[in-house]
Amino acid sequence: MLRERREAAIGVFDSGLGGLTVAAAIAEALPDEELLYLGDTARVPYGTRSPATVVRYARNNVAFLRERGVKLVVVACNTVSAHALGGLADGGDTPVIGVIRPGARAALAASRGGPVAVLGTPGTVRSRAYEYAIHEIDPDRAVHAIACPLFVPLAEEGWSEHAVTTMVAREYLAPLAGTGVDTIILGCTHYPLLAGAIRAVAHEVLGPEVAIVDSATAVAAEVARFLDSTGSRRLAGPGARRFYVTDAPDRVGEVAGRFWSAASQGIEHVDVKVT
Amino acid sequence: MLRERREAAIGVFDSGLGGLTVAAAIAEALPDEELLYLGDTARVPYGTRSPATVVRYARNNVAFLRERGVKLVVVACNTVSAHALGGLADGGDTPVIGVIRPGARAALAASRGGPVAVLGTPGTVRSRAYEYAIHEIDPDRAVHAIACPLFVPLAEEGWSEHAVTTMVAREYLAPLAGTGVDTIILGCTHYPLLAGAIRAVAHEVLGPEVAIVDSATAVAAEVARFLDSTGSRRLAGPGARRFYVTDAPDRVGEVAGRFWSAASQGIEHVDVKVT
Repeated sequence: MLRERREAAIGVFDSGLGGLTVAAAIAEALPDEELLYLGDTARVPYGTRSPATVVRYARNNVAFLRERGVKLVVVACNTVSAHALGGLADGGDTPVIGVIRPGARAALAASRGGPVAVLGTPGTVRSRAYEYAIHEIDPDRAVHAIACPLFVPLAEEGWSEHAVTTMVAREYLAPLAGTGVDTIILGCTHYPLLAGAIRAVAHEVLGPEVAIVDSATAVAAEVARFLDSTGSRRLAGPGARRFYVTDAPDRVGEVAGRFWSAASQGIEHVDVKVT
Repeated sequence: MLRERREAAIGVFDSGLGGLTVAAAIAEALPDEELLYLGDTARVPYGTRSPATVVRYARNNVAFLRERGVKLVVVACNTVSAHALGGLADGGDTPVIGVIRPGARAALAASRGGPVAVLGTPGTVRSRAYEYAIHEIDPDRAVHAIACPLFVPLAEEGWSEHAVTTMVAREYLAPLAGTGVDTIILGCTHYPLLAGAIRAVAHEVLGPEVAIVDSATAVAAEVARFLDSTGSRRLAGPGARRFYVTDAPDRVGEVAGRFWSAASQGIEHVDVKVT
C-alpha cells in the first residue's frame, strides 16, 4: 500500500455518540492510528427507522468520510451494519468493516455451546443479521433476539444504575427464562453503558455463568487484522483524533464523554449532505 | 378571502406522529375542513436536538405544506413552536399557529391561581417558551418546567399503563412536591398517551385537585377563531384527510392509530427536501 494511504485516518461513524465505545476500543488497540469519528446526531436514532432510510443516511455518512480520505470505514452502528453493509462497500474502494460479524464471532468464542441471545434495536432485530452471522459459523446454534427500544434513551438519559433501567431490563429479558442461553450480545453501541443493570438482571434470569459480550473489542481486533493483512498500519504515532457531529445540542461533549472521555472536548459541528 | 383559499386544506406538522392528537382535535372541532398531516418520522425526535437544527427541519416541513397549497400551517410540535415560530411565519403569506400560546392560555384558565408546571422535551424546557407565554398574560405567575426525555420513547413503546412509566413519572414529578402547583401542562404532543400514569403520580405528589391540561383542544379552538376572523372556513364538508410521513417503518399505521384512529390507514411515504 502507498505510504500516503497508510498514513490516512480510520473513519468511524455511528447514528449518534454510542459508537464512541467502538472508537475508544480501536484507539486503545491501535494507538498510532489517526481516527476520524462522525456521529449523525441530527438524525439519531436509526434503530426505529425503515431499512431504506437507514441505508440512505449511512451512504451519506460514508461519502462524508471518503471525502476526508479515510483508508477504512468502520460502521460502529449495529442497525447500519445489519441493513446496509453490502451496499456501503459498493461504489468506492474504501473497505468497510461492520460490528455484527465481529460481535457474532466474539459471542461464539465466549459461549459454552448453549443458545445465544442478542439485545438490539427494533431495526437490528428485524434484520435477523446476528442470526445470519452466527449461522454462517454454526448453522445449528439457537439464537434469541430481543428488541429493546428503551435502552438507547435510558443510556442517553444517563440512568445507567437507575431502578427504572433494572425494571425495563427485567421486562425485556423475561422471555429468556428457561432458554438455557449462556451468552448475551449487547447488539447496540449504547448498551455497554447499561451493562451493570443488564448483567444483574441476566444473572437473575439465567444464572451467574451467563457471559455478556459487546462488539467493541472484537471490532478493534478485526481492524488490526485488516490493517496487518493489507500492510496498511500507520508507521508512527500517536495518531490524532477528530470528532464530528451533525447536530451539537447542549451538553453534547458531556454525553460524548460518557462513551469515551477523549471525546468530551473539541467536537466539531458539520453538515453531512443528505441525498 | 378568495373561495379557492377557503377550500384549501389546513396543514398540520409534527416531528413525528404525536401531533396527530392535535390533528384529531382540529378534525373534531372543524369536521368540514380538509386536513393535511405531515409527520417527519425520518428525523424524529426534535426534542433533544439543537435549536438551529429544529428550525431547519421545521422550515423544510413548512415548505412542503406550502407547496401543497395549505391555507394555514399548524405546528403541532411543542419543540418547534418553542424555537421557531417567529421564523416560520417569515418568507411567505401562509399564517402559522403553534401549540405553546394556546396551551399556556388553557393552563391559566384551568388554574385556581397557583403555580403552573410544564412537562416537556429538553428543547422545549430550555427554550422557556411556556414561561414567556404565561408571563405575557400573568407576569407574576410561578412556572416550574421539567424536562422529561423518557416520556416520548415510553409513549412510542406503548407502555401507557406500565409500572415503568409510573416510576419514571415519579422521578420527574418529585421536584413538584410542596410547590403548590395546581395545574400541569402536558407540553409535548406525545404525553397525552401517558396521561393516566402522569395523572396518578400528580395526584400522589400534588393532591387530587391538580388539573392536567394538554394543548390539543386549545389549539383547535384557536384554529376555529382564526378561520372565523379571516372568513376562511370551508363552505361545506366533510373534509378529506391525508397523512404523510418522511419515513415509514414497520407498524407506522399501528403507532399512528394510537394517536388518532383515522390515521391508521392510508399513510403515504414522502421525501421532504432538506436544505
